[in-house]
Amino acid sequence: MSGVRVAGVGLTAFGASPERTGRDLFAEAGCDALADAGVDRDDVEALLYGNFMGELAEHQGHQGPLMAEAVGIDAPATRFEAACASSGVAVREGVKRVRNGESDVLVVGGTERMTNLGTAGATEALAIAADDLWEVRAGMTFPGAYALMAQAYFAEYGGTREDLAAIAVKNHEHALNNEKAQYQRAIDVETVIDAPMVSEPLGLYDSCPISDGAAAVVLVSDEFAAEHDLDASVAITGTGQGGDLMALHDREYLARSPAADEAAEEAYADAGVTPADVDVAEVHDCFTIAEVLALESLGLCEVGEGVTAAADGRTTKDGEMPVNLSGGLKAKGHPVGATGASQICELAMLLRGDHPNSDAVADADTGLAHNAGGTVASAVVHVLEVMES
Amino acid sequence: MSGVRVAGVGLTAFGASPERTGRDLFAEAGCDALADAGVDRDDVEALLYGNFMGELAEHQGHQGPLMAEAVGIDAPATRFEAACASSGVAVREGVKRVRNGESDVLVVGGTERMTNLGTAGATEALAIAADDLWEVRAGMTFPGAYALMAQAYFAEYGGTREDLAAIAVKNHEHALNNEKAQYQRAIDVETVIDAPMVSEPLGLYDSCPISDGAAAVVLVSDEFAAEHDLDASVAITGTGQGGDLMALHDREYLARSPAADEAAEEAYADAGVTPADVDVAEVHDCFTIAEVLALESLGLCEVGEGVTAAADGRTTKDGEMPVNLSGGLKAKGHPVGATGASQICELAMLLRGDHPNSDAVADADTGLAHNAGGTVASAVVHVLEVMES
Repeated sequence: MSGVRVAGVGLTAFGASPERTGRDLFAEAGCDALADAGVDRDDVEALLYGNFMGELAEHQGHQGPLMAEAVGIDAPATRFEAACASSGVAVREGVKRVRNGESDVLVVGGTERMTNLGTAGATEALAIAADDLWEVRAGMTFPGAYALMAQAYFAEYGGTREDLAAIAVKNHEHALNNEKAQYQRAIDVETVIDAPMVSEPLGLYDSCPISDGAAAVVLVSDEFAAEHDLDASVAITGTGQGGDLMALHDREYLARSPAADEAAEEAYADAGVTPADVDVAEVHDCFTIAEVLALESLGLCEVGEGVTAAADGRTTKDGEMPVNLSGGLKAKGHPVGATGASQICELAMLLRGDHPNSDAVADADTGLAHNAGGTVASAVVHVLEVMES
Repeated sequence: MSGVRVAGVGLTAFGASPERTGRDLFAEAGCDALADAGVDRDDVEALLYGNFMGELAEHQGHQGPLMAEAVGIDAPATRFEAACASSGVAVREGVKRVRNGESDVLVVGGTERMTNLGTAGATEALAIAADDLWEVRAGMTFPGAYALMAQAYFAEYGGTREDLAAIAVKNHEHALNNEKAQYQRAIDVETVIDAPMVSEPLGLYDSCPISDGAAAVVLVSDEFAAEHDLDASVAITGTGQGGDLMALHDREYLARSPAADEAAEEAYADAGVTPADVDVAEVHDCFTIAEVLALESLGLCEVGEGVTAAADGRTTKDGEMPVNLSGGLKAKGHPVGATGASQICELAMLLRGDHPNSDAVADADTGLAHNAGGTVASAVVHVLEVMES
């Protein structure tokens, strides 16, 4: 079984660029990733691609071959869709293909174009990640769904709006010097608390923005990296995926995310590491409460303690285990189909030392990525490690 | 590397059932496949699922976990989308997972719900498989795209509307006793020629219908089949995938489908068989001309000779190499996301002897499935073989 290296990463700026097509965005990310890797596009054996709502935002399905063409890759392309975990799933499939010896060089990534739909249109489009018959038709949107999860969490374990606000404040702080982030603007707890309420207890600043963007990584086998003398010190050493019932009302409890528990357990076992080994994590904070659930599923906090992790300074830039140094979905932005791959990009840069926030984790050698779909009916977790050669 | 057995198959009737939801359709197919296999749903390790236009037809993305739930599978689920090759790609991923030892038991399948959109709505939705910027906005739909391919074929290699009509006549004939087929009605060449023209030279009867339906297969490892004494005589021994540029105008020529050439070459080499070994094939005849291109890509006819294969009786039920004994997309129907998996279902039944048309291929031991996306910008080919034990 071959090891899997992240040979290159490419990210567009995340934010509002409604004039750019999906293919324009992914061409930038994919070409940048190949250039960063120093890999010839003719060596690429497949494109594994995540996209969520292209049918609605661009009247464009079948994006696999379209995006291969945009990057100049003459190889089979496959699209994966798992709502907001779409490119996380694509990364997972890529890791398996390289491990199994099926491929030596893959481009894996994703794109989403959302802002052209407007906020209401994008919110409606996002709702296709929930159960249309039993949730969406009853009026539920994702802010409402995560608000239910937050209320359940507060009822079960305690926590306050201020605790959640500290997560948003932290992630905005982390994004301050990330020039690819949608928001490079500091906020404080009062800003979060005083912002318009979206769905109690989640206000505007508890919610990630609507974003356009693309991300891509070049995955190569250990052998290919060695043969081509690539600068590819970061490996993906663990992968896990979990699933859950779609509709919240079918679940045993709302204050936890068992699909992420399963994905984390599998990824840790796969890599042979434990939560104690993790130095830095990028987690799926589509809403502040989502970061709490992620930390607990990943075993980075005890159940019931994730809610105060940011307020206590444990997950801040200068804390013991910084979380979302990119700014997270909250401040970096959340172009849905790009998010899973972008987490891998950010962690690879953090671990190899060329991220704007690398200084905060100078000795880090293990990173964790957590990407969730819907109300965590899909979850994918990856472990990244710095290798000696 | 483990061999991969088709342990069970499940198919809904294809046709117009606008009152049935996608989950209702897939629940039937998935549960039937598990029952046919005699496999306990608790043994299923993942669902690999194809769907194309659920976002437009049902306002429902993220169908992986939803469909796992519908079948009662408590395992991670992933959706694959490659236009009309969506579940063909899912089958391919399933084959690889079993081979690589990652899984012993998988459910693989797909669904499409289309008739609720109406013919015009479904045609518009199908167009998301083409290049929206450069084809669809110029007014191109799939009947138009395949008409261009047919015109190019006629110009390059010759052929007549009557030749194409013989393909439709054949596939309707084959569907006569397939109770799951959308049309069980004989037609003649005059019917095809006299039908309303859709896009010259393709008339109404050169075109597959708009369909609802679902299909599922249970894939297991050789070891699991042996341990559980399953009746699983048919194996998938070869898999291949190819890709091409999306837009027709970017291609070197229109009268061939190089993505299918590549997929076939890979699948044959993978299985260690040649076109001469193939006894029966299910190919992607979304339009009559598509069957011609498929036969030539698969090496079942010389280039330029596929167009007369049906008229000459070579691919009919009593011909030397029957093609689309199910009725094909033309007469059996084409619920897009289900089609690739349904071809595997039909071939497995034909080869194991319990298909209504098994008598036509009583001595067959090798079958071929060809599933295409868009104007064959994606193609997947599988080889199925009867194993001795």
